[in-house]
Amino acid sequence: MADSRVYRASTTAPVNIAVIKYWGKRDAKLNLPTNSSLSVTLAQSDLKAHTTASCSQAFSDDDSLILNGEPSPLTTPRSQACLARLRALRKILEDRDNSLPKLSQWPLRIVSINNFPTAAGLASSAAGFAALIRAIANLYELPQSPTELSAIARQGSGSACRSLFGGYVAWDAGTAADGNDSVAVEVAPASHWPEMRALVVVASAEKKGVPSTAGMQQTAATSTLFPLRVEKLVPARMIAMKEAIAKKDFATFADLTMQDSNSFHAVCLDTVPPIFYMNETSRAAVRLVEAINERVGRNVAAYTFDAGPNAVVYYLAENEGQVAGVFKSLLGDKDGWAGDRGTQVQEAPIEGLDERVVAVLKSGVSRVILTGVGEGPIATSDHLVSESGLPTQ
Amino acid sequence: MADSRVYRASTTAPVNIAVIKYWGKRDAKLNLPTNSSLSVTLAQSDLKAHTTASCSQAFSDDDSLILNGEPSPLTTPRSQACLARLRALRKILEDRDNSLPKLSQWPLRIVSINNFPTAAGLASSAAGFAALIRAIANLYELPQSPTELSAIARQGSGSACRSLFGGYVAWDAGTAADGNDSVAVEVAPASHWPEMRALVVVASAEKKGVPSTAGMQQTAATSTLFPLRVEKLVPARMIAMKEAIAKKDFATFADLTMQDSNSFHAVCLDTVPPIFYMNETSRAAVRLVEAINERVGRNVAAYTFDAGPNAVVYYLAENEGQVAGVFKSLLGDKDGWAGDRGTQVQEAPIEGLDERVVAVLKSGVSRVILTGVGEGPIATSDHLVSESGLPTQ
Repeated sequence: MADSRVYRASTTAPVNIAVIKYWGKRDAKLNLPTNSSLSVTLAQSDLKAHTTASCSQAFSDDDSLILNGEPSPLTTPRSQACLARLRALRKILEDRDNSLPKLSQWPLRIVSINNFPTAAGLASSAAGFAALIRAIANLYELPQSPTELSAIARQGSGSACRSLFGGYVAWDAGTAADGNDSVAVEVAPASHWPEMRALVVVASAEKKGVPSTAGMQQTAATSTLFPLRVEKLVPARMIAMKEAIAKKDFATFADLTMQDSNSFHAVCLDTVPPIFYMNETSRAAVRLVEAINERVGRNVAAYTFDAGPNAVVYYLAENEGQVAGVFKSLLGDKDGWAGDRGTQVQEAPIEGLDERVVAVLKSGVSRVILTGVGEGPIATSDHLVSESGLPTQ
Repeated sequence: MADSRVYRASTTAPVNIAVIKYWGKRDAKLNLPTNSSLSVTLAQSDLKAHTTASCSQAFSDDDSLILNGEPSPLTTPRSQACLARLRALRKILEDRDNSLPKLSQWPLRIVSINNFPTAAGLASSAAGFAALIRAIANLYELPQSPTELSAIARQGSGSACRSLFGGYVAWDAGTAADGNDSVAVEVAPASHWPEMRALVVVASAEKKGVPSTAGMQQTAATSTLFPLRVEKLVPARMIAMKEAIAKKDFATFADLTMQDSNSFHAVCLDTVPPIFYMNETSRAAVRLVEAINERVGRNVAAYTFDAGPNAVVYYLAENEGQVAGVFKSLLGDKDGWAGDRGTQVQEAPIEGLDERVVAVLKSGVSRVILTGVGEGPIATSDHLVSESGLPTQ
């Protein structure tokens, strides 16, 4: 007889911001990267995707996804690849234990929301795909480890594989043709170095740049500097960065983070035609971080830029005043300083800043987000699908 | 008995704009470059340095230079190195022929002016040092070839060595420790490919960037991408560029010019701390050149940027309307379009340009200079020092 129950599982998943950048695919279909990358997972209290995966024999419709209240296609090859793989893993369990409900055969209803500030220009795909994979894996009660699941998340969105872990996470490029060794691994948990903070400096949304998937393909195909980055520079930085994290050596962490961000944007500029992601606001943020480090006399702040103009500035809690305090002294009127953490930041003006840098930041920054290193996906009973299978919002 | 005559020689010298960039010194004192470079000499009707070198036994003062009406120091190590070498070459002649006046022993009075638009942000040192060396060599009636003199000019200002020739000029990096083989040679005279035009798009003077001498030292010391550029990429481009010039293959000339400019700015960005010379106006000029080439369906325009935000756009006379005409349709109200050449340019609007690109160009460009490939230094009887040894202006 028919099982009309609605099976549900919900999870939240974090954003991650790379300090050694992923740029270039050796296999576009499988989302296999040309080089390894390393990221810091950011706290979900500030930025997270929240996803409920549900299924029921009573669902008559096809698989569906409602993202931030809007129906969203699950029919992309990438999504299809993820769902097919997860169903196959579930089917193995069902074949092994006949008493298990045949969830793998039933339509999925997935509802997801994220708490990202709108127009923040933050890539939500990593957190979104990580939450999707994690929620379905929980629904299907899959025994696979986060690293095993990361090979599936990677096919949805490359950097999503790193959002299956908290703390400090490496994505090993791997060498296998099928990508089975291109997976995410924990370098260190958040608890190893919990003092890591991140200030996201959101540059006013201008016209979108080249989408990263297209951009990294162009760079790999045309940049004559790119092979050196992939073959020599990034592998050396990966080793040095893991060591810096193990030692909690922020000065080295900062050097490597800033160098790799600049190296990444350099090969973008070296692409034919050149790709520009950093703008005047981004460069002003670079100059301000340099001024902060110069005044303190050592690296207490490190900037990094993804495929867009936003700056993410890493620093340690003990230096919050010297770093976030300087940004607040210039940008205190922008959104993002409210809330416990923001109000605790003491403004710390710097004398003698370049007037142009200050003016560009004041006019170019739309908001800030104060966050820090955080945990990986967290299962929750806060379901976005009701017991009767309807979206709760 | 004393010779009270004032001996004079005057010359003009051109600006050159590199299409394969000089960036990095293997010897700072001798101004020896890490890589070869190649430039196009620009017509002196538009941009030139005009210099008179004079000397007399009756001059009691020290060597002196008046630049654009202002006393200017000749005491810098670089200037001193040039003057000492030229005097040594003159002395060889005097020792060989006793009848020659002992010009090498007398004070030099040098007067120089240039016709560069003020605040154009164009480096005048190349033309200035080339004119200085050429004028003194003429005054001293030195038999040395321009290539031999280029080794002296190089010590004054690296790229000055290329301004001793017209047309298409290579500066061979050389390998000798004393730099004797680091000299300029003519790749092709202007008459070989006289159709080459250049539109200088002057970006409003902002705060000056890192001076090139300091900047290239920082890049050589810290950029991890730089060695590949120096050891592999530039040498390959030098060969390809000489071939493109020999064949008058503009499409290839344009590809190489744009790629090398972007490669140069990429290693600047990869420098610790990063160096930014291009600004929003520069990037908008890049986008406009891309739109021009896209509309025509092939490379009819090539941008290049030196250590500053100004764009130099190369094109062939036959494509003036399709290139300069598009710039004029957007920037026709800026200085520089008057005069025979500018008024002849027919405005050629492009449909569907990115509004931001247009707005940034309109607000960021201060003037344009229409010029093209031209001749090397030209001796003139228009002396800036009177027969009595006084500046004529």
